Amino acid sequence: MNTYDTLVEELKRIHALGEVSNLLDWDEQVNLPPQSGDFRARQSAAMSAVVHREATQSRVGDLICELEQSGDLDSGQQLVLAEARKDFDRLTKIPEDFVAHKAEHLSKSYHAWAKARAENDFASYAPFLDENVKLAREEAAFLGRADDPYDYWIDRFDPGMDAATIERIFSGLKVELVPLVREILDSPIKANTHCMRGFPVERQESFLREVTAKLGFNYERGRIDRSLHPFCSGNAFDTRMTTRFFEDNPLDSLFSSIHETGHGLYEQGLPHEHVGTALGQSAGMAVHESQSRLWENQVARSREFWQYWESSYREAFPEQLAGVSSQELYLAVNAVALNPIRVDSDEVTYNLHIVLRFELEKALFDGNLSVMDLPSEWNRLSEEILGLRPGKDSEGVLQDVHWSGAAFGYFPSYCLGNLLAAQLWYALQEQVPEVLSEIAQGNFVPVLEWLREKVHRHGRHRFAQELSRDVTGKELSHECLIRYLKERYLPLYR
Amino acid sequence: MNTYDTLVEELKRIHALGEVSNLLDWDEQVNLPPQSGDFRARQSAAMSAVVHREATQSRVGDLICELEQSGDLDSGQQLVLAEARKDFDRLTKIPEDFVAHKAEHLSKSYHAWAKARAENDFASYAPFLDENVKLAREEAAFLGRADDPYDYWIDRFDPGMDAATIERIFSGLKVELVPLVREILDSPIKANTHCMRGFPVERQESFLREVTAKLGFNYERGRIDRSLHPFCSGNAFDTRMTTRFFEDNPLDSLFSSIHETGHGLYEQGLPHEHVGTALGQSAGMAVHESQSRLWENQVARSREFWQYWESSYREAFPEQLAGVSSQELYLAVNAVALNPIRVDSDEVTYNLHIVLRFELEKALFDGNLSVMDLPSEWNRLSEEILGLRPGKDSEGVLQDVHWSGAAFGYFPSYCLGNLLAAQLWYALQEQVPEVLSEIAQGNFVPVLEWLREKVHRHGRHRFAQELSRDVTGKELSHECLIRYLKERYLPLYR
Repeated sequence: MNTYDTLVEELKRIHALGEVSNLLDWDEQVNLPPQSGDFRARQSAAMSAVVHREATQSRVGDLICELEQSGDLDSGQQLVLAEARKDFDRLTKIPEDFVAHKAEHLSKSYHAWAKARAENDFASYAPFLDENVKLAREEAAFLGRADDPYDYWIDRFDPGMDAATIERIFSGLKVELVPLVREILDSPIKANTHCMRGFPVERQESFLREVTAKLGFNYERGRIDRSLHPFCSGNAFDTRMTTRFFEDNPLDSLFSSIHETGHGLYEQGLPHEHVGTALGQSAGMAVHESQSRLWENQVARSREFWQYWESSYREAFPEQLAGVSSQELYLAVNAVALNPIRVDSDEVTYNLHIVLRFELEKALFDGNLSVMDLPSEWNRLSEEILGLRPGKDSEGVLQDVHWSGAAFGYFPSYCLGNLLAAQLWYALQEQVPEVLSEIAQGNFVPVLEWLREKVHRHGRHRFAQELSRDVTGKELSHECLIRYLKERYLPLYR
Repeated sequence: MNTYDTLVEELKRIHALGEVSNLLDWDEQVNLPPQSGDFRARQSAAMSAVVHREATQSRVGDLICELEQSGDLDSGQQLVLAEARKDFDRLTKIPEDFVAHKAEHLSKSYHAWAKARAENDFASYAPFLDENVKLAREEAAFLGRADDPYDYWIDRFDPGMDAATIERIFSGLKVELVPLVREILDSPIKANTHCMRGFPVERQESFLREVTAKLGFNYERGRIDRSLHPFCSGNAFDTRMTTRFFEDNPLDSLFSSIHETGHGLYEQGLPHEHVGTALGQSAGMAVHESQSRLWENQVARSREFWQYWESSYREAFPEQLAGVSSQELYLAVNAVALNPIRVDSDEVTYNLHIVLRFELEKALFDGNLSVMDLPSEWNRLSEEILGLRPGKDSEGVLQDVHWSGAAFGYFPSYCLGNLLAAQLWYALQEQVPEVLSEIAQGNFVPVLEWLREKVHRHGRHRFAQELSRDVTGKELSHECLIRYLKERYLPLYR
């Protein structure tokens, strides 16, 4: 076996073990008995240590060095090598005692956050968050990024992206989106989201299985289960989505399942023979999110989608939908309302929640904002951007788990994903003109095949910005998202 | 930390990782999507290698040596050390290339067996089985047991047990059981097992959850799910049982669930602080099986059990049980019939299936029987012992998976478990005279508490034979099982 093949074999073995760790997490959220948490924590810690040690063996480093010196690799192999180097450096340049200290601190930080949110007490959590920012800076410094720690973290989630690019894109977005939100909210037309009640969970489940299978999710290589918060984990060989059910909010589980299906379809579309290397790995969080959002929003909130599904939906829930007109249903699917909570927000206002978080993160890392001043700045900016001042910190600065885990630079991906989804959506319609009429007939194959061809099969060959250029012929920007939101929402709310 | 504590910490970490491997198996049988098997096989292989390497680190061997030389240990610590030595030797004295060759061969052997069974073609499988016997002999030789390989394998499953002891016990059993089976089968009274049909699966599931919870299974630290074949895996912290459902055979899932509950209660009763060492580990397969059988048979097939549960059972399935009298129900619960298939046999004839297998295994290892002659010898002995000649090899010598995996010496545990269960059952009644009347009132606490005290809490402190002596005051023998079977079945069938 040659050196490259040997490296690939090692990477695949490490990936398979990493996926065992991920399965432990999945199982914890889906199956774990209530009192089995302590033992699972021991198992997870032992597995993490094993995976870390496997991924940092000197043998892996030696193979990488050898290949870097030999130079006889094609472009795909070069990508695999470069990404393997990046992963290896990240794992080996950060000292073990720092990793241990950080893990211990983050565990405390998580509990401090959960307590602070429950008790609406930012001050008790502030020292932990302050330390999280410091740890994030230190970690960046270990990788030679002491001067641009925030860019380091953005790149961790979206390779090739940086704060300056995001700032430029988000500024354009904000200018257009703030008045658009205002216009929709000022409309006398309001969606009635309370008209859908008493949807039996079993029937919701069988309906969403029918929908997600029709969209193309391969249940021969995947599952959907229930968990407190929906998520998608696993890989192309075994993709595991979750959802949750509310009898009085059936659109929640339906749309979050379609969202997770978008993630799942991406994973299932990555080249199977390359799973475990960069060629079989997603191109970052923004691209991942573009897939979930495109299916959830552009596809599943469209007139055409509901032209096809409305009759089956009414068949599954005849009494529940008897008093709901088609227009009321479609308006409920596309409800817009200001909400202080990001995860409860619609696809229009959601992006402003992200802009807010990005501006705060950037200020924190630029040194223009201290953790102590974060709540007041959150509230001020929230009023400025969203037109809404949270009633209390638990509905404001304390609402998200991310910062408690030192996951800075992650929030922008959500909005970048929305931008990319809209951009892909128009490119799809240009390149496959019949796509909307096919959707209206319940044929989702053209959407999936196009995404497979343009996005999925490339693995990490194209990160968000190159993907945008290559597939849509344009730089990633706010334009398509604004166009999409205007085309979808203004006719509805005018 | 002292040397002993360091060893214990290592053993617990290795155990936690081993349980990750077991969880992969559980997940494979309960959750794995149909086409995800190849990736799971890679994960399982990678995990097995990790666990093997962790368990064979020289560090573990050094700690064991150091403690063996220091000598300053209490009896519990001595047990932990002795068992750790046994495990370590077993893992390190068998050469890695032998392990790899065996794993590869067993995989082929399994598929050859499955094909041979499907096609009723023993000859195609014979060379694989022949190699399995050779491999079993070789493995025993690596551990210094070239002269008594069958005893080595029996000891693997039931420490302290050997073929001579089993032969003595089984001879006594056979003499008494063969005529007893004949007497029951010759009775004009026959159980009607076809009177129970159309039991909806959801109601079966909720009924068996109620029953198993009442027996004492802690669902806060365990689960029951569905799989093709029922099993119980996990440990005291997270015990996972499975069952299966047939609408027209509700007693199958009910009794197999109670059987698995017996295994689960044992695991849950092992001392939590010692899980991962011999003090928190079951005392072998026979003791494990004694727990599952005692709950399944002695407890759950008793008049008293059904005195309590019959009314709830009828409430759950009023139409299905409308035409079934109490006596018919009780007779169905205690149906006896000759069946060529071991796993479909009742608790009376089952033991003869085991005697048959033991005699054949012993002859194979004594060199008195060749694999080629196994089918004819199986059929001859089957007629002699069971009074039944299988119509074809797929219902005879090919029926069980065990030998295809080179699991020789395992079958006897099933029958030894039955013997021990009966022996414990009479000891329980002597020591807790009110136990039957408590069962009749739905109080299973006295049974569980007694088992916790006499069996569970001791971990590996007492293997099957010492346990028998210590708890029942008698050597393990056929007497109690024969007495129990006579007391339960003769009045029913006379």
